Amino acid sequence: MKFGIIGSGDVGKTLAVALNDKGQEVMLSSRAPEKLASFIAEKPHILVGNPFETASFGEVIINATPGLNSLDALLPLKHALYDKTLIDLSNPLEFPDLTLSVANTDSLGEQIQRLLPETKVIKTLNTVNAKIMVNPSSLGTLEHVMFVSGNNFIAKQVVIDILKDLFLWKHVIDLGDISGARTQEMLLPLWLKLYQKIGSSAFNFNIVKKE
Amino acid sequence: MKFGIIGSGDVGKTLAVALNDKGQEVMLSSRAPEKLASFIAEKPHILVGNPFETASFGEVIINATPGLNSLDALLPLKHALYDKTLIDLSNPLEFPDLTLSVANTDSLGEQIQRLLPETKVIKTLNTVNAKIMVNPSSLGTLEHVMFVSGNNFIAKQVVIDILKDLFLWKHVIDLGDISGARTQEMLLPLWLKLYQKIGSSAFNFNIVKKE
Repeated sequence: MKFGIIGSGDVGKTLAVALNDKGQEVMLSSRAPEKLASFIAEKPHILVGNPFETASFGEVIINATPGLNSLDALLPLKHALYDKTLIDLSNPLEFPDLTLSVANTDSLGEQIQRLLPETKVIKTLNTVNAKIMVNPSSLGTLEHVMFVSGNNFIAKQVVIDILKDLFLWKHVIDLGDISGARTQEMLLPLWLKLYQKIGSSAFNFNIVKKE
Repeated sequence: MKFGIIGSGDVGKTLAVALNDKGQEVMLSSRAPEKLASFIAEKPHILVGNPFETASFGEVIINATPGLNSLDALLPLKHALYDKTLIDLSNPLEFPDLTLSVANTDSLGEQIQRLLPETKVIKTLNTVNAKIMVNPSSLGTLEHVMFVSGNNFIAKQVVIDILKDLFLWKHVIDLGDISGARTQEMLLPLWLKLYQKIGSSAFNFNIVKKE
């Protein structure tokens, strides 16, 4: 499958390497591709393009831009993203107060879906660090879960398959339509408190049901 | 220990029974005590009082009123609650849209703490149903957690001891000061989605750390 990753920070790079290692075709976008030279030197099979080339290249696009920049970064790509599946793993995190720029009655996932009505936005992976995204078993053998939400059933199933088959997630919970993004993004403040408490981002949530 | 429980809905009653069964002295408040006659007939050791009597009776007070009524219910009790520990397990849930009346930059727990500055407000138990609050092992043997937050360290330790010694919680995570209430209350939208998905409220969250 062809993946286009918008945003080449740590999250974008980690996803690019993981997908490339799994034999997928990957283009990573940067507005300053020369900054990726040393990264690409080690991973020569990963393509680099500008955001428009990357959105055009991918069959599945991943929004790995910082949440507060996501709407501005994605709007110019509207036509390239037409009818495509967009995995949104961003969080609308405000600095330095670590609150959300949108919450409760709306979410960044929903804002992106409204901005790109002809794109199939699927929210997932925003509740763990990049290493866990692509290697959930790095936490060990205890069960933990990934949430997913989105309006398009088929696109959501494609993303669930990517999570399970490429990243080896065992437990994926479908929260329904894209309004589920509110509940996924509202986990972030708790995540940040736990990060502070635990002193590490190597953790995730699990849901324990009555046995 | 003497417990005063403000609010005699299912949550208040379940807590009253559990604390009474554990040998604690319990007063349950109602503005219409006659409605509790059949309940009390089965549990004659549970005292019934009006809210003021209940707040005066308890050494530890539990706010089991509906979140949207909590501020109005607690304000008249300000003097009776002076210097006492108040366990706040309410959620600021708006009907019918199931959003929060306060979130992200503030929380009901913090509003209550500001309303009652001389009361030691400890937020906990708002993330599970009443049966799990008082009997976490009802979910089975898998690990799951309860969060707690509050400004007063000693009062928080008293509440953690209540959770562990009376209700037999094994895993309690201290999220720090009362601003942690934001993160606990913002779990509710996800809780509601999961309730819908699972078709039962018999579940809870766990935090899985790297082994």
